[in-house]
Amino acid sequence: MGYRMYDLIEKKRDGGVLSSPEIKWMIDEYTAGRIPDYQMSAMTMAIFFKGLDKEETLNLTMAMTESGDTVDLSGISGIKVDKHSTGGVGDKTSIALAPLVASVGVHVAKMSGRGLGHTGGTIDKLESFPGFNTSITMDAFLKQVNDIGIAIMGQTKDLVPADKKLYALRDVTATVDQLSLIASSIMSKKLASGADAIVLDVKCGSGAFMKDLVSARALAEEMTELGRGAGRKVTAFITDMDEPLGLAVGNALEVKEAIDTLRGKGPEDFTELVMSLGAAMVHFAGIADSEEEARVLLSKSIENGDAINKLKEFVKAQGGDERAVDDMALLPSAKYEYELAADTDGFVESIACSEVGTASLLLGGGRLTKEDEIDLSTGIIMKKKKGMPVKKGEALALIYYNDEEKKEAAAARLKAAFKIGRVKPETNDIILGRI
Amino acid sequence: MGYRMYDLIEKKRDGGVLSSPEIKWMIDEYTAGRIPDYQMSAMTMAIFFKGLDKEETLNLTMAMTESGDTVDLSGISGIKVDKHSTGGVGDKTSIALAPLVASVGVHVAKMSGRGLGHTGGTIDKLESFPGFNTSITMDAFLKQVNDIGIAIMGQTKDLVPADKKLYALRDVTATVDQLSLIASSIMSKKLASGADAIVLDVKCGSGAFMKDLVSARALAEEMTELGRGAGRKVTAFITDMDEPLGLAVGNALEVKEAIDTLRGKGPEDFTELVMSLGAAMVHFAGIADSEEEARVLLSKSIENGDAINKLKEFVKAQGGDERAVDDMALLPSAKYEYELAADTDGFVESIACSEVGTASLLLGGGRLTKEDEIDLSTGIIMKKKKGMPVKKGEALALIYYNDEEKKEAAAARLKAAFKIGRVKPETNDIILGRI
Repeated sequence: MGYRMYDLIEKKRDGGVLSSPEIKWMIDEYTAGRIPDYQMSAMTMAIFFKGLDKEETLNLTMAMTESGDTVDLSGISGIKVDKHSTGGVGDKTSIALAPLVASVGVHVAKMSGRGLGHTGGTIDKLESFPGFNTSITMDAFLKQVNDIGIAIMGQTKDLVPADKKLYALRDVTATVDQLSLIASSIMSKKLASGADAIVLDVKCGSGAFMKDLVSARALAEEMTELGRGAGRKVTAFITDMDEPLGLAVGNALEVKEAIDTLRGKGPEDFTELVMSLGAAMVHFAGIADSEEEARVLLSKSIENGDAINKLKEFVKAQGGDERAVDDMALLPSAKYEYELAADTDGFVESIACSEVGTASLLLGGGRLTKEDEIDLSTGIIMKKKKGMPVKKGEALALIYYNDEEKKEAAAARLKAAFKIGRVKPETNDIILGRI
Repeated sequence: MGYRMYDLIEKKRDGGVLSSPEIKWMIDEYTAGRIPDYQMSAMTMAIFFKGLDKEETLNLTMAMTESGDTVDLSGISGIKVDKHSTGGVGDKTSIALAPLVASVGVHVAKMSGRGLGHTGGTIDKLESFPGFNTSITMDAFLKQVNDIGIAIMGQTKDLVPADKKLYALRDVTATVDQLSLIASSIMSKKLASGADAIVLDVKCGSGAFMKDLVSARALAEEMTELGRGAGRKVTAFITDMDEPLGLAVGNALEVKEAIDTLRGKGPEDFTELVMSLGAAMVHFAGIADSEEEARVLLSKSIENGDAINKLKEFVKAQGGDERAVDDMALLPSAKYEYELAADTDGFVESIACSEVGTASLLLGGGRLTKEDEIDLSTGIIMKKKKGMPVKKGEALALIYYNDEEKKEAAAARLKAAFKIGRVKPETNDIILGRI
């Protein structure tokens, strides 16, 4: 297959459609280092302007999926269901959702990332449990899913190397923000992870990559089509990220909220999200005939303690101290607490969601580069959410911190994030749409 | 000036206008190797789609001009006039034009390139004179212009390094074909070469980069504006390149045609081009009050032998064997001659100009990479040009060659380039437009 990258760039630049073998060749050669970055970045910029049609996007996704190792989950019985969130502030969903659905019989074999940004990824958060090990072998991972129905491990190094390389390049060449490239990046990793069915959580709002419903829906549709095109069962939820999810932002704080939620004592919005995504997963797994029925199963599991016990079993299986589920003092906690007080009466008109994330980052709870250390103990507990009345002097949020200077910076940022107005604003449901 | 290349790419991608300091910073950092190729290629692709406005293009041109050495011609008296052609098949213009205008008193201090493609550049062609040295020092170059009014040297290594780097990158990322980038690339080199006035020859037609009058005129206007914006006197001719210029294609063959032309025995189209460009140069130099008057001076110089004598003086000054001007047998000549005969009666309807160039390249007269050796002796003499009647068996062209296999390939290519029809086609004037 003697293509020239120059010709492919020119073709895309002029609005042409890349064929399946052309895309396959391009991704393979790029992954192998035989197409230089400077040609690939010209290509991604041409794609930014000319787009990829549905077939090109699917071909790109499949080529990336096949660029490295793929996970074989055939040794696990039943329908394996995975879940993916496009990410937002206070998103601790997997920590609660995975044990919850496992507690009613869904086999959860999940790979997760560390992530850059305002907080760590699921993998970081799970390390709040003393001793928790996410660097388990593939064999141990598969065995654990067969034994107790749930395992979560860090992404293996050779999963979708094409995406790793391409994403890093897009990140420095202003070509991240293109729907087909975003969708293929996410879906190639999900497809390579081997699940039969995938539930997508596409965040929408000021704290998400997709700021409005139209673009969030477009991404959700694109990803759903890609997954189905690759022969998987897929459904997508579009969910609100115009303010932080739940109340906790910060690694160990979020774990605590997930534990509360598995006990039926979680914040309303977060609980509803977990139940909705969970019901879809349980239904996909064939354990219930409808999502309504699945919801009943999940509610029962929370009530009878199966859900929280599954979390303990999961933590223990991966070497973590499961006593921390009951005694949360065993989780990392910050030295100091600071109350951010309102300086006027009114209603919380809006919360600049990404600013809350930045405040968490400034406290040490996130990382900007892969090498950064993360402080699992710090973070923010929101005391007021959108639409709530507030009195002067009342707490808007609590800041948990270890360093005075960092607290100052975070508090200033957090304060500015709250907009207090005179009129009670309309608030969003957590579930904005469904595909 | 703490810019980030990411931000500049994003700005241009979104249709923004880059400021003068932003462009200056970008070119300086790129030239210094502190902006990687993969970011610059994303930028050039964004420019391909979003363009540069007139001010951005001028700022880019000036930043490139200043990216390396610039030539100081202030030690040479009078108005220094340079000429630039965008290049085509059989373009030996400088070989005749430079001595011609020098013979009436224009100071010609010209830097020229070797060039890739169907024939060599002016520098290669001049080396047809045995002993001719184009690698002279800047001091010797300036002294020679002061002594005899003319010198031509190869481009110094550090002239416009930004363009060298940027052009090489554009060449492999499908971003050559953008008007502002083409214009700034050409003009930055001309501006750095130090002339006070510049006469541009923008080729138009099947053998040129610009295929039609509209795009050729757009480029001519853009370059003219850039030169004027940089404070130089500039005029541009748009000239025909729908068939080879003159009759000779190939290095030493073209030199012979230039010599004939300086004796008043050149082909009509080539003579007219040289006289037109020359008149503009002489007028720019202030030696004549109008181009009409300048034309009279040039005609006289050809008639009285001043022009041919200036060529001899020039060749001798740069170490070449000036006897070759009178005894052209001293120039390189190919071993064999082949007559390409017509196989049908009719009129030459069209000549696929770039195919004639390729035929010359196949004979060994051009190079594809900088390292290729060039055969100065080979080439083609056109016996029929567009619109001429032709009889079956009559010669269309003569091929001069040293290698039978190469001749076969070239002959097939050349044959296919001639389209013989029944109706006499309209023919173009050599000068298509003027700015």
